[in-house]
Amino acid sequence: MPTGATRLLAELVAEARWEDLPAAVRHEGVRSFVNWLGCAIGGAPHPGVAAAARVAAAAFGGAPEATLLGMRRRGDPMAAALVNGISSHVLDFDDTHESTLIHPSAPILSATLALAEARGAGGAELLAAFVLGVEAACRVGAAVSPAHYDAGWHITGTAGAIGAGAAAARLLRLDAERTAWAIGLAATQPVGLRVHFGAMAKSFHPGRAAQNGMLAALLAAEGFDAAPDAIEGRRGFAAVLSAAFAPERIAEGLGERWEIMRNTYKPFACGLVVHPVIDLCLRLRAEPGFSAGEVERVRLRVHPLVMDLTGKKEPTSGLEGKFSVFHAAAVALLDGAGGEAEFSDARVRASEVAELRRRVEAVVDEACGRTEAEVVVAVRGGAELRASTATPLGSLGNPMSDDGLGAKFLGLAAPVLGGEAAARLLGDAWRLPTHGDLGWIAADA
Amino acid sequence: MPTGATRLLAELVAEARWEDLPAAVRHEGVRSFVNWLGCAIGGAPHPGVAAAARVAAAAFGGAPEATLLGMRRRGDPMAAALVNGISSHVLDFDDTHESTLIHPSAPILSATLALAEARGAGGAELLAAFVLGVEAACRVGAAVSPAHYDAGWHITGTAGAIGAGAAAARLLRLDAERTAWAIGLAATQPVGLRVHFGAMAKSFHPGRAAQNGMLAALLAAEGFDAAPDAIEGRRGFAAVLSAAFAPERIAEGLGERWEIMRNTYKPFACGLVVHPVIDLCLRLRAEPGFSAGEVERVRLRVHPLVMDLTGKKEPTSGLEGKFSVFHAAAVALLDGAGGEAEFSDARVRASEVAELRRRVEAVVDEACGRTEAEVVVAVRGGAELRASTATPLGSLGNPMSDDGLGAKFLGLAAPVLGGEAAARLLGDAWRLPTHGDLGWIAADA
Repeated sequence: MPTGATRLLAELVAEARWEDLPAAVRHEGVRSFVNWLGCAIGGAPHPGVAAAARVAAAAFGGAPEATLLGMRRRGDPMAAALVNGISSHVLDFDDTHESTLIHPSAPILSATLALAEARGAGGAELLAAFVLGVEAACRVGAAVSPAHYDAGWHITGTAGAIGAGAAAARLLRLDAERTAWAIGLAATQPVGLRVHFGAMAKSFHPGRAAQNGMLAALLAAEGFDAAPDAIEGRRGFAAVLSAAFAPERIAEGLGERWEIMRNTYKPFACGLVVHPVIDLCLRLRAEPGFSAGEVERVRLRVHPLVMDLTGKKEPTSGLEGKFSVFHAAAVALLDGAGGEAEFSDARVRASEVAELRRRVEAVVDEACGRTEAEVVVAVRGGAELRASTATPLGSLGNPMSDDGLGAKFLGLAAPVLGGEAAARLLGDAWRLPTHGDLGWIAADA
Repeated sequence: MPTGATRLLAELVAEARWEDLPAAVRHEGVRSFVNWLGCAIGGAPHPGVAAAARVAAAAFGGAPEATLLGMRRRGDPMAAALVNGISSHVLDFDDTHESTLIHPSAPILSATLALAEARGAGGAELLAAFVLGVEAACRVGAAVSPAHYDAGWHITGTAGAIGAGAAAARLLRLDAERTAWAIGLAATQPVGLRVHFGAMAKSFHPGRAAQNGMLAALLAAEGFDAAPDAIEGRRGFAAVLSAAFAPERIAEGLGERWEIMRNTYKPFACGLVVHPVIDLCLRLRAEPGFSAGEVERVRLRVHPLVMDLTGKKEPTSGLEGKFSVFHAAAVALLDGAGGEAEFSDARVRASEVAELRRRVEAVVDEACGRTEAEVVVAVRGGAELRASTATPLGSLGNPMSDDGLGAKFLGLAAPVLGGEAAARLLGDAWRLPTHGDLGWIAADA
């Protein structure tokens, strides 16, 4: 029988009752679902997604029981787990669990939805499995953080596989012992070296983690057994993949404090480090009398990581624009937004944007926190507009509203599905726990 | 473009010519194939194999283009890679690369054969891909040994996935750049925590590694890219999965000295640590005038690990018998063999075996090498028979003969396939490089 942390997680996943989850936890699960669904549909046109679909659904695919989101295609649940895991992460626009840096939905929802479709599960079942999978992933992740990520692991594909395994086990209604096997089989398949950041292989990580978790649960369901102490044992996940392990982070408040409440959603289509600057530029732009044409100079005060990661002065493509805090500030002041459109090739190359970009300066301030920034805009005539924040939009202290998430969804999904289908899908997605089946996903996504 | 060790391996795998491989290397490849095929067929009746086949070939399987060895079934190549990877390792009777402890054939041949069958490749193509995959796996493995295994990784599923990816890339005729992507995508999916030793999850490791390598190569073939320095880069495979890295072990003698020449095959159906004792008991039994009925006492002098791992005095099942050097010595003296039959429940429980087992004593000698042992048999009347070895049968210095491998194959395959089909398959397997197609495998295996 399972032991220690592995047992605690397995029992929670197998035995927690949907009815007992607080309303706020359920609603946060729906918000994560809406955000993830939009990201997957918006990411579907990426060439890496098409390549993965050719392999997984064509080279050896089985019965088409699950939706390849945004592709107007179906595949077997394994294919869908891979493809949706890639598409929902490829834009780097998906959710982030605060403190661990896990992007929980890409691995966990990709496994859970595909299996739920194939098994004819309803929305509440899907959502319960997802929330419990997030719990497993984020608690294991927290217990090995930050040493595990610092060592070079892409934690989304390692802890994420464990979460996907737990969620799939829940959906298959495995008992605690078999759920522990599923967790163990998932833990023995960690995915993701950070050396791949910048290559398609990065978004492969959550896709493969989704498959690994699903396979783990399917095997456990058939009686394929694993060590009872796969997480905490000598030569188990924590000992082998991390220089430090705090098992109490798995146990503390388990079943009372829910990790999904620490999930965050990006309002802007670029790295989190740039978010404070964009948020402040949008606020200044909204001030009465502001006119982009009158801006003479923009001065940013930022955390050192901002310049390390996004210090590109003269970006030449949309992708490079995401790594330029100068572009992000300029386009936000001009266009009043920070979505995919503002990081397109065309917008990065537009002369008015380039012209304002050159008047943006950044100063690194070692005293600045990771979510802090200050923006000072000097306008013609000598006046200065100034704003600062430590809780930019999208951070845990200043989360996106449901309306904001809906607008983000439509911005991602409408260009792929058309506005009408996207709007209908959004309405259905907000009602996720009420659906007795999931046929509406295949119909519109 | 790829760099460093990743590039060196990718170029070798993509560009080496079958015609240029030395005859001894080709023959060792065939010996590995014969040994692996027997192990897979012999392992097929294990319940874990059936569970994996239900999941992989039934739950989401595609077109049945590859053989599930020993099961009289076919599955898609992904399913076959998983199932054959498990069945060929589940008896712990497969090959071992000396020095790294990699069991190369289970992950690499399981991927290569399944893909070769699906693509209509011939025997020489299959064999070249396998030998080159072994080269990649064992050189990467050697470069991170022993720190990587000591940290708790089951190296067969980590380096093995890289070997499977390289072999699959070769079979798909990828160029060096795409082969490097395949290696990188395989390296980012290492399988195998040693916590699972003793559970079915252990043999899942080479099965999943086979799938991971195959998927990596199929994705790379479709243009799905990966870091160019996945093995040696900062946050690459070596840095993240090992406390020490000796990249020169990848480069030294590459394309001249072949790792498959250091592959070894077990003559006996139990852990390698017991092999010296069994070998010596068989030698003494073969001496003129030896009679098991006259044995009064057996004294073993062994390496400390022998008692650590196989010190069980009174085993009660076949599996426990494999962890009893006392049983191994007694049954070898009585039956003149050390195969699966000698480690059956029936033989472990037989009274004549138990009776002799109780007269076996073992003394640990710290000065004893890992492959060394001494056996002294005292017979009625006071005489002593004595033998010692540092190169037991199956070690690199005293390899199994081709005839020995053939007999091992038949011992494993005949009970599953019947004697006639097994013998025909063995003949075909020895002629592997001459076959233009692989249809004979599905016909008999």
